[in-house]
Amino acid sequence: MKKGIAASKGYAIGKVFLQENEEIVINDTKIADIGAEKEKMQKALDDSKAQLEIIKAKAEKEMGAEKAAVFEAHITLLDDPEFTGAMMMEIENNSVNGLKAIESVTSTFVAIFESMDDEYMRERAADIKDVSKRIISNFAGKGGDSFAITENNTIVVAHDLTPSDTAGLDRSKVVGFITNIGGRTSHAAIMARTLEIPAVLGLGDITECVKTGDAVIVDGLTGDVIINPSEEVIAEYKAKKEKFQAEQEELKKLIDVKTTTKSGRRIEVCGNIGQPEDVLGVLANGGDGVGLFRTEFLYMDRDSAPTEDEQYESYKFVLEKMEGKQVVIRTLDIGGDKTLPYLPLPEEMNPFLGYRAIRLCLDRKDIFKVQLRALLRASIYGNLAVMFPMISGLEEFEQAKEVVEECKAELKAEGKEYSEKIQWGIMVEIPAAAVYADELAKHVDFFSIGTNDLIQYTLAADRMSEKVSYLYNPMHPAVLRLIKMTIDGAHKHGKWVGMCGEMAGDEAAIATLVEYGLDEFSMSATSILNAKKIMLEQE
Amino acid sequence: MKKGIAASKGYAIGKVFLQENEEIVINDTKIADIGAEKEKMQKALDDSKAQLEIIKAKAEKEMGAEKAAVFEAHITLLDDPEFTGAMMMEIENNSVNGLKAIESVTSTFVAIFESMDDEYMRERAADIKDVSKRIISNFAGKGGDSFAITENNTIVVAHDLTPSDTAGLDRSKVVGFITNIGGRTSHAAIMARTLEIPAVLGLGDITECVKTGDAVIVDGLTGDVIINPSEEVIAEYKAKKEKFQAEQEELKKLIDVKTTTKSGRRIEVCGNIGQPEDVLGVLANGGDGVGLFRTEFLYMDRDSAPTEDEQYESYKFVLEKMEGKQVVIRTLDIGGDKTLPYLPLPEEMNPFLGYRAIRLCLDRKDIFKVQLRALLRASIYGNLAVMFPMISGLEEFEQAKEVVEECKAELKAEGKEYSEKIQWGIMVEIPAAAVYADELAKHVDFFSIGTNDLIQYTLAADRMSEKVSYLYNPMHPAVLRLIKMTIDGAHKHGKWVGMCGEMAGDEAAIATLVEYGLDEFSMSATSILNAKKIMLEQE
Repeated sequence: MKKGIAASKGYAIGKVFLQENEEIVINDTKIADIGAEKEKMQKALDDSKAQLEIIKAKAEKEMGAEKAAVFEAHITLLDDPEFTGAMMMEIENNSVNGLKAIESVTSTFVAIFESMDDEYMRERAADIKDVSKRIISNFAGKGGDSFAITENNTIVVAHDLTPSDTAGLDRSKVVGFITNIGGRTSHAAIMARTLEIPAVLGLGDITECVKTGDAVIVDGLTGDVIINPSEEVIAEYKAKKEKFQAEQEELKKLIDVKTTTKSGRRIEVCGNIGQPEDVLGVLANGGDGVGLFRTEFLYMDRDSAPTEDEQYESYKFVLEKMEGKQVVIRTLDIGGDKTLPYLPLPEEMNPFLGYRAIRLCLDRKDIFKVQLRALLRASIYGNLAVMFPMISGLEEFEQAKEVVEECKAELKAEGKEYSEKIQWGIMVEIPAAAVYADELAKHVDFFSIGTNDLIQYTLAADRMSEKVSYLYNPMHPAVLRLIKMTIDGAHKHGKWVGMCGEMAGDEAAIATLVEYGLDEFSMSATSILNAKKIMLEQE
Repeated sequence: MKKGIAASKGYAIGKVFLQENEEIVINDTKIADIGAEKEKMQKALDDSKAQLEIIKAKAEKEMGAEKAAVFEAHITLLDDPEFTGAMMMEIENNSVNGLKAIESVTSTFVAIFESMDDEYMRERAADIKDVSKRIISNFAGKGGDSFAITENNTIVVAHDLTPSDTAGLDRSKVVGFITNIGGRTSHAAIMARTLEIPAVLGLGDITECVKTGDAVIVDGLTGDVIINPSEEVIAEYKAKKEKFQAEQEELKKLIDVKTTTKSGRRIEVCGNIGQPEDVLGVLANGGDGVGLFRTEFLYMDRDSAPTEDEQYESYKFVLEKMEGKQVVIRTLDIGGDKTLPYLPLPEEMNPFLGYRAIRLCLDRKDIFKVQLRALLRASIYGNLAVMFPMISGLEEFEQAKEVVEECKAELKAEGKEYSEKIQWGIMVEIPAAAVYADELAKHVDFFSIGTNDLIQYTLAADRMSEKVSYLYNPMHPAVLRLIKMTIDGAHKHGKWVGMCGEMAGDEAAIATLVEYGLDEFSMSATSILNAKKIMLEQE
């Protein structure tokens, strides 16, 4: 038995399909026929594009638009003159062979992106490697995709799984996957949870321990992987699996159940979304509403900011789909580790303590007003609540509200409609806002606690920093006190409090949060049903 | 009249001495006699060194060892093979003329240091420019120093004042200074306050507005600078100046006064120090003790960490000089914006939220134990209190205390003495510690509130970031609440609370802090008397 990181819940019992990383030999040979090599390269690019279009369509259907967006970025890379264009130039100008041209341009790009002090940019390096691997495979005539799975009940074993590997898998045959590297927040883990396929990652050397055809059991709850299990063990896990599946079926019965505690207190259980289409997942899992729409995803993977009309359409879509259920939309939270190619930010020593979110929006009203106008116009199509991120004091909230009033006046003058029933709230994610919640509550309509940032600031520990991430602890007594202060402060003035950080969906935290009186929990759609079940058991 | 930044209090009425930035023309000419040019260069280096030795001795006498340390760094630069060595190589290998060699090596160095994302390193660029300017002046036969002041009551006017400019000034003749650039925390400002010379900085173009010999008034309280004032204005300012000086004399009477509020509550007013010799300033200003010894200064500007014996001597010196008055020593607070050449730190996206202070010390017990052993051994010479920086929860304090116990056991085995009366406390500078203070107070002997960091984390605003420094506000209601929570939490368990951030010496904050019940204030030595005066007026 081996133990890894339990990255996606469930049990899988099946046969190994070992992803062989076929070595494609790349040498330095100069080529004679430049025209032929360029044609071959173009074919490799075209094949790659065609494959990615299929993967993207499949991903959109199976995982939603947010998860599929990465493939749009991959396709864009294939047309990038700096990237694939540079490969062609290598062939044309230096008679470099095609494989070598792909390899050398890729390594330059990867080196640049990996050296950047920016999480988002470093992720781009992984995308570039993924695309490059595909071009090389197609150029070498290997067909681009490394999974030719024919057996049912297949458990994929790989060193790592790229987004396109994961999305390309045949869901009717693959029942689990296990890898050498990756953790709970890696691409592979997120994809596995979205696809609801059990996965254990970070096993170190699992690709050395098994071969295709080996029997294997994946325990996505404990992180255990059992190779060539005995009949008794198989029987044991079959029973576990059945029980788990029965529980999952049982959970599905909660889809239409309104969540109330034993003492009869109603709790709203909502979903977090990044793209408009993600509301479908929230509805399918019985969400009472959208507790967080991260609008920055509308701004990403593009060359310019989305227009007022584009945004209006997105917000309208979500509000209409939710049919009167509450939708909480957060205004643009860019900066920190999230950057946009068309919005240069100042170099800062500590971007998490810097120019981001509402600070940026109040400074760049040109950008802020486009979003506010779109939100106001869309408000007539449903039950809208808007919240501002990174509020540290009353002044910022009042300044933001002034900009809202400006936008309202403009729209009125233009004869455009908006609802007067919008709720205006703030994210409580800066310690100051939590400490001062009882005063802020007099002025806002609601709070939404953003635990990811609140915990980081309260403990002065960046959870991305390997050296101090051990300090990041949602159950730290000071964090719990700040949450309690926020809830008590809001209730004192008759306002409601939601939570949209990861803690809201954390099984270990739900009972405490219910006890504190939290009114609304917002989490990833796939966590909603389990959370409902736990809440129904509370007093 | 012009208005700048009031950087050092007091009034000066005098005649302008305008620092002329004599243009020394540097050209590309190759030289024929390499030997002669190298000799000339060596002489320029020797002259520079001799001048800096004098400046350093003068600075030590007039401003204390901490402020003078910068000149030791300058002298070291003159012997640096990478710096002055590279200039010699330019002459020898490329027949470059001396001035050009100085200029080109300097510009390479400055570019490297200025590009670093590190406050400390960027300051090094200023040092390099300062030294380079001196070498060029000496090489060109201009004598190195740009101030040949002969008149009494001189007010120095310059574009900027470097540390060596400031330290080189003749204090018997110079009564004030004003510059185009610089703010309250610039080198020039700090030096001016230490020398107790009125200064107004950041005037933009003052060097264009006056010439040597002009009459000028400097108002270091408001930032006003009056050029060629009328007789009436001069009379008005003479009166102001006399009143100010009388007040300063009045303040000196408070040196031996124990501070009690009107209602009879005793308050300790202490000094912050960075180098052992700085205790002399604390004593001269009537400090009740040392509230913060920033030990990281012992580790800076060296090639290796100070040994146990070196540290022991430093701590012993301070404890003995303070003759039984309390000395609070903070253990090493390195990381964040403070780095050491011999202690490589990991690259982090947000160093302020990263691997620093107690986090580093608990990880690097080899370094931590050297300091703890030195502190324990020195403890028998006075009244020692030790505090750990960046504590976020009880566990860290307990781990640190375990290392202390280890050190005690070692010393006991070695037959070395230590006091059992040391107080062990923590810095409250992370929001979690303030929120959780009532629990932590059960375990520690005292708290010291570090407002600089506490404010940054509570408001999630890096005060070094130009774009968000406006958010940094000591009087933010949430910050005040956290301070109150810390004091109340400590008093509940009979523990005392100090404050050693800049807020403790802030005239606008003292009344509130006294009202909250703060037991000890620690500030720069020159602020002590004025703080005492304000406290004596409180209830």
